[in-house]
Amino acid sequence: MPAPEASRPGFARWLSQSNDVTSVFLAAGQNPDLINLAGGLPEPALWPVDELAELAAEAVRNHPVETLAYGPIPGLPALRDLIAARFSTPTLRLGRENVLIATSGMQALELVGKVLLEPGATTIAAQSPAYLGALDAWRPRDPEYRPMRLEDAGFDPVTALAGAQFAYTVPNFSNPSGRLVPLAQRQALVDAAHETGTWLIEDDPYGVLYYEGAPLPRLLDLSGARKPGTYDGPVVYMGTLSKELTPGLRIGWIIAAPEMIAALAAAKQGSDMCSSGLGQMIALRAFERDIPGRILPDILATYRARRDALCAAMHEHLGEYLDWQHPSGGMFVWARARDPRLDTDRLLAHALAHGVCISPSSVFDPEGLDRGAMRINFTLNAPERLAEGVRRLASAIQATLAERS
Amino acid sequence: MPAPEASRPGFARWLSQSNDVTSVFLAAGQNPDLINLAGGLPEPALWPVDELAELAAEAVRNHPVETLAYGPIPGLPALRDLIAARFSTPTLRLGRENVLIATSGMQALELVGKVLLEPGATTIAAQSPAYLGALDAWRPRDPEYRPMRLEDAGFDPVTALAGAQFAYTVPNFSNPSGRLVPLAQRQALVDAAHETGTWLIEDDPYGVLYYEGAPLPRLLDLSGARKPGTYDGPVVYMGTLSKELTPGLRIGWIIAAPEMIAALAAAKQGSDMCSSGLGQMIALRAFERDIPGRILPDILATYRARRDALCAAMHEHLGEYLDWQHPSGGMFVWARARDPRLDTDRLLAHALAHGVCISPSSVFDPEGLDRGAMRINFTLNAPERLAEGVRRLASAIQATLAERS
Repeated sequence: MPAPEASRPGFARWLSQSNDVTSVFLAAGQNPDLINLAGGLPEPALWPVDELAELAAEAVRNHPVETLAYGPIPGLPALRDLIAARFSTPTLRLGRENVLIATSGMQALELVGKVLLEPGATTIAAQSPAYLGALDAWRPRDPEYRPMRLEDAGFDPVTALAGAQFAYTVPNFSNPSGRLVPLAQRQALVDAAHETGTWLIEDDPYGVLYYEGAPLPRLLDLSGARKPGTYDGPVVYMGTLSKELTPGLRIGWIIAAPEMIAALAAAKQGSDMCSSGLGQMIALRAFERDIPGRILPDILATYRARRDALCAAMHEHLGEYLDWQHPSGGMFVWARARDPRLDTDRLLAHALAHGVCISPSSVFDPEGLDRGAMRINFTLNAPERLAEGVRRLASAIQATLAERS
Repeated sequence: MPAPEASRPGFARWLSQSNDVTSVFLAAGQNPDLINLAGGLPEPALWPVDELAELAAEAVRNHPVETLAYGPIPGLPALRDLIAARFSTPTLRLGRENVLIATSGMQALELVGKVLLEPGATTIAAQSPAYLGALDAWRPRDPEYRPMRLEDAGFDPVTALAGAQFAYTVPNFSNPSGRLVPLAQRQALVDAAHETGTWLIEDDPYGVLYYEGAPLPRLLDLSGARKPGTYDGPVVYMGTLSKELTPGLRIGWIIAAPEMIAALAAAKQGSDMCSSGLGQMIALRAFERDIPGRILPDILATYRARRDALCAAMHEHLGEYLDWQHPSGGMFVWARARDPRLDTDRLLAHALAHGVCISPSSVFDPEGLDRGAMRINFTLNAPERLAEGVRRLASAIQATLAERS
């Protein structure tokens, strides 16, 4: 007769503070008729499948050691060199020592938290509302958040950054707000980072997704232009293959001062040792053949039309309930309820019952308090399905408001 | 004129406690004549490169969404099912809810630390000496270590496990000691885990590498046999593709109670969201075609011969300096200096100067205090090169002892 079973030790505290929105979405995904406006998913029909298949086979056959063996912790040297060259400009000099390859942009966020956050004792100045995934990545290290509301007239970057361990921004079509940070504010953020010493994270998954207008300079560009020589400034730039090629290869990159790259490599050693050699080699060859450049026009045309279709349907069906801005790029429309009684957490439940899914604002607020807005994605669904999703959302809003009146 | 640059915030404290042995090895790797007996690297000539190339292309072409899109956080359902079936036995019932796919065995270690360690406030009972990578994975969360010396006559598993958050073991050919934990001790560890409630980590990268004798039951098997029904016991089993196929795909798996898998999935969401779909699909197809089973005889024959070559050369050249046990599997010989003046940290410096590289015992000790032993790998190098490495090591030992006398 074995001894009686003892109770198990508990899980770490942060797990009880985790939001369950992702599991709600996954469960909802079981419903094939659900129109998913919640995620940030790309359109698979835009991927060059046959070319990637051929490229995968060539990568393994011609480079078996680079693709199948353990690789260097900070990434394949040739891919690091390529990323350095791709982001260098006449006033921004980058070398291999400025680049680390990460297993996705999500891992890039996790690694930065790992090297900069002292558990329970660090302040992050974060663009507000903030990307859910960044909050997920940093939650186990229990940071304090100082919200940066960049659109506020009185926003002062030096006050915002002083004393924070790092500042977190998504200057191009922020997730969730879709906001494009204007040039003057970019310059002010960079100047504040140099003045205060605070690290300045530039998370840039959507930098290729400009539907109108010329791309603005990156924070990294503005910081590099302040000083000649190999980059060693305070900006930590994060890029990803997910939006310009495909997400499933799980390849991202960090560009930063060499001392930061060295710290991130020490962190990566204990996280997953190195990123997939096969994924890295496919990324390298894809860039060398300019596959991202070749498919970009199609991506832009498709997503631009979908953004327009979503906004037109919203104008028709949601104008009396919501306010929003037409985003000039990215993947999302951020919409705020006109009626303060419209709680978007409650709306989510009704939306699921009506066969549509949005992301409520509470998940983009470190405190979980903002229940008045929502993020709506326009990249995954075709125009007619976006319109149907908006009609369902209008019914769900009516049901939510009826419940509260 | 820009404002003067402020000093930057410091990095998290754990980075200053990190060992630099990996960067020493990487720098040494620049020397093409160096004989690397330090790592735990497989022999690339054993990989079925053409078959994997073809399989990679098929995976992308036939399953573009599974391979190229974001996937479910805990892994592709078909791969989770396959792993569950592969490890099920008449007395161990596993389902998909018992399995999480990880981005390498290293990530499995990191995720377990993330869900079980409260920073600065948790005890790990760890088989001693302990795998360097596990120490790396858990260092940022600042655990206390309680060493488990399984070979000591007085070792009592219940005392060792009581009050610890989890116990960490490598029962098959432990890294670094090469030790095979005998059946009676496996049973006692499992019984102690059930009695105390302490989670029991079974890290099993070398479970397929038995060169003599029949494989012993896993801790997972022994725990499952205690109670019918889907597994919900305290053992957390970790496996990897790295030793039975290739490491570069970065695919590992965790088998555990459903509540643990759910917690690990929440942790993985904020670490890298999901593992590479391409890597997972290649793993799935490789198992379905039994590629690991087909190449295993060659792997075993090659590594067995190399182990014998290493031990024969050690017997000839190192017998007067070192004591060791002939391992019956795995990748390593663990050798202890007879002369207490032989400091293996110092030996590493001399070894590098002599063109050979070993892993000193200090890196396998959470306190870094054990400087009397070393880990020697036999899987990467052919027999004649192993013999040359041993001759160089003998010269390095003589130089180290000469320095101290």
